[in-house]
Amino acid sequence: MDVRRYVEEHRDEFVAALKEWAAIPSVSADPGHHGDVRKSAGWLRDHLAAAGFPTVEIWESGGMPAVFAEWPAADPGAPTVLVYGHHDVQPARVADGWDTEPFVPEERGDRLIGRGTSDDKGQVLFHALGVRAGLAASGADAPPVTVRMLVEGEEESGSPNFADLLERNRDRLACDVVVISDTTMWSADVPSMCVGMRGLTDCEIVLTGPETDVHSGSFGGAVPNPARAMADLLSALHDGDGRVAVPGFYDGVAEISAEERDLIARLPFDEAEWLATAGSSAASGEAGYSTLERIWVRPTAEINGMWSGHTGAGTKTIVPHSAHAKVSFRLVPGQEPAHVQERVRAFVAERVPAGLGVRVEFGGPGVRACASDIASPAVRAARSAMERAFGTEVLFTREGGSGPEADIADVLGAPLVFVAVGLDDDRIHAPNEKVEIPLLLKGAESAAYLWERLGSQGPPAG
Amino acid sequence: MDVRRYVEEHRDEFVAALKEWAAIPSVSADPGHHGDVRKSAGWLRDHLAAAGFPTVEIWESGGMPAVFAEWPAADPGAPTVLVYGHHDVQPARVADGWDTEPFVPEERGDRLIGRGTSDDKGQVLFHALGVRAGLAASGADAPPVTVRMLVEGEEESGSPNFADLLERNRDRLACDVVVISDTTMWSADVPSMCVGMRGLTDCEIVLTGPETDVHSGSFGGAVPNPARAMADLLSALHDGDGRVAVPGFYDGVAEISAEERDLIARLPFDEAEWLATAGSSAASGEAGYSTLERIWVRPTAEINGMWSGHTGAGTKTIVPHSAHAKVSFRLVPGQEPAHVQERVRAFVAERVPAGLGVRVEFGGPGVRACASDIASPAVRAARSAMERAFGTEVLFTREGGSGPEADIADVLGAPLVFVAVGLDDDRIHAPNEKVEIPLLLKGAESAAYLWERLGSQGPPAG
Repeated sequence: MDVRRYVEEHRDEFVAALKEWAAIPSVSADPGHHGDVRKSAGWLRDHLAAAGFPTVEIWESGGMPAVFAEWPAADPGAPTVLVYGHHDVQPARVADGWDTEPFVPEERGDRLIGRGTSDDKGQVLFHALGVRAGLAASGADAPPVTVRMLVEGEEESGSPNFADLLERNRDRLACDVVVISDTTMWSADVPSMCVGMRGLTDCEIVLTGPETDVHSGSFGGAVPNPARAMADLLSALHDGDGRVAVPGFYDGVAEISAEERDLIARLPFDEAEWLATAGSSAASGEAGYSTLERIWVRPTAEINGMWSGHTGAGTKTIVPHSAHAKVSFRLVPGQEPAHVQERVRAFVAERVPAGLGVRVEFGGPGVRACASDIASPAVRAARSAMERAFGTEVLFTREGGSGPEADIADVLGAPLVFVAVGLDDDRIHAPNEKVEIPLLLKGAESAAYLWERLGSQGPPAG
Repeated sequence: MDVRRYVEEHRDEFVAALKEWAAIPSVSADPGHHGDVRKSAGWLRDHLAAAGFPTVEIWESGGMPAVFAEWPAADPGAPTVLVYGHHDVQPARVADGWDTEPFVPEERGDRLIGRGTSDDKGQVLFHALGVRAGLAASGADAPPVTVRMLVEGEEESGSPNFADLLERNRDRLACDVVVISDTTMWSADVPSMCVGMRGLTDCEIVLTGPETDVHSGSFGGAVPNPARAMADLLSALHDGDGRVAVPGFYDGVAEISAEERDLIARLPFDEAEWLATAGSSAASGEAGYSTLERIWVRPTAEINGMWSGHTGAGTKTIVPHSAHAKVSFRLVPGQEPAHVQERVRAFVAERVPAGLGVRVEFGGPGVRACASDIASPAVRAARSAMERAFGTEVLFTREGGSGPEADIADVLGAPLVFVAVGLDDDRIHAPNEKVEIPLLLKGAESAAYLWERLGSQGPPAG
């Protein structure tokens, strides 16, 4: 039996398992769902153990738990790979605009709809199938490389404890290549490999004014209004060219090279189609950069949410007592999250009018951006494995989103390769998240071929 | 028995009635409470009938009902007064910061705490007591003037149907003087009479972007963010001098006269105390005007509420699909609400970035500002009645808040006088609204003296 046939014959079993897992609302950002995040870790532990991994453990992180699994190669000299993914998911409520219950996964043809099906449970799960397919094809009892998996539970909360978890378990996680399965491909027809991700730091800004909401007839126009001060502050975040106006924000950012610009410009990018996927009727952003450059290689500031005063039905003529905003910053290689946080704090502090209080609370230390060297043996091997699975050329892209990948590469001293099969129209972090089941199966195939290739190469040169 | 003694002997009965009425959550802005607004109208009808008003009717307005009552003078040549007030109240929830249940009125010493106790149920109710006190003192069967009362049910929703109600019932509301009991005095120690109120128009602005919330990693920085556009828009509402930056907003506004400025400056205004009442640590507003000028004679734009995107716990890295703001504008004599609305619509329309949709929904036609002539016989009679009740000089003030008073004066062609005993620290429209019971009793006395004085004067000259 070859890899492809094994994978295809196990499709239904694979989808059934994913439906079961995605039904657990493992929302790490919501303390009310922390029990579910633990339940999700337990589910994955049981699933990987059943798949044959000799070692499967739940690792406490101080926050939400990660799952670690290991399947040693028969040959003690074979390379070791570490697969990274996450089992926590973004918040989701029907009221946000879902057509289905977000945690009742629904299969429609080749698609599975539900929170986490693409980001990232589906992409974690194909690795278990991939290892088994490889064994079925080779007839061996153990994979051609030592496969380690680390599936964390706080990625959607900015991975606040992940760097520490890596440090503490550095020896058990030692590896020659880190395989990241938490990104997207160019399209279902144009498979691609990501070679960089942006970093992230996020904060909540709170401005406080009168002790309580007060009548705008009696006090309006004569005391500072925190909602107005918040509007002024948020409006000042960008200049007229769409650049982030926080002084020092761009410190360390290397301008994009001409070579990289050319590479990006050669991708078959259809802006109209991209806008349709975004559900937006126009593109806009930093002057002087293309849409792909804006989302891949340029840092941003984005208002994710804001609220103040009366938000219910009808009229309430008040000066609100407080105003809140959630703002996140996407970072690129060269930017240090701690430096950005310090510069944002200073920017806010300088702009608060007399009479208002202010708090800026960052959601954690933030996540640095990362990039992989496209000339490295690991990237070449992964590209070739994907090309075999998909039967076509695999291109290079970047990813505008963020994960703790930079930490992994730094702590473990191993190169990153991204083997992932999500799509931009999977609506991750949005209502109606879905995944394309045939692509998950290609992911499983790719993983099996990659282990075979890396095993036959011996330890990569570096 | 004199008026004062009658009023004081009926204190407990009066407070018990007010507690019963204020327990009805007649929130006109919330469709979920419309049944309670009707219940409140029924309560008042029964109360006024029991007080002796020969005619008491519930008037449908197309929206929430008003209550009309009439008690003709014995002398058919006596003047007619029309008392205006409202029986609907602002929204209130314990979660907003109340120390008590807002609709379970609580008596603490001389205070009654609860939504509507000051604004405006307490001030409507003292008129029923005042009429009875006058009759007890005179021994007559009917008041010295024909007393009409019109107590509307949509004041806190901008009185959308009130002008029409007045027009339709112009004959039955005909009067020589309109008495407004919906404002405040300078302080408990410094009684005063209001001679002007600001107008109001309010809107909700909605900006729409992506069809749903989208992932800020995949789309952030490359599509217009409605929250950012809203911040830009709200920030642009004011210039650096705190003036409203909507072109044409100040059309028709007469600058304040030197005489009026002097009058305002002579009031014993303690800014530190006023800030303590506001619960604010600083005053701020339009450059070149004092705090009292800012709230009494200058128009304003105020953000009453705003919301967009993720407002719950934790982080959600999205570009929100929409942003909302509730903005109200206080108007002064000379400004036309319809003109201001048209200018605001144009201002918003000019500022919406490409790719975003926009809606501006005004809560109704708006309310014009009003002012009374301090030299008129009606104002002189009311001032003198209040001076007799309070035993001290009564000063003149204005009111920063808004009501449908301008409509009443226009439609009925009668001068306005304000006889009201609320205080700025009654926390109307805010948590922990209260009223000073002794001041309500002084209000009842003032009303009785005013009817006596107007009755003995015969019809005012104009």
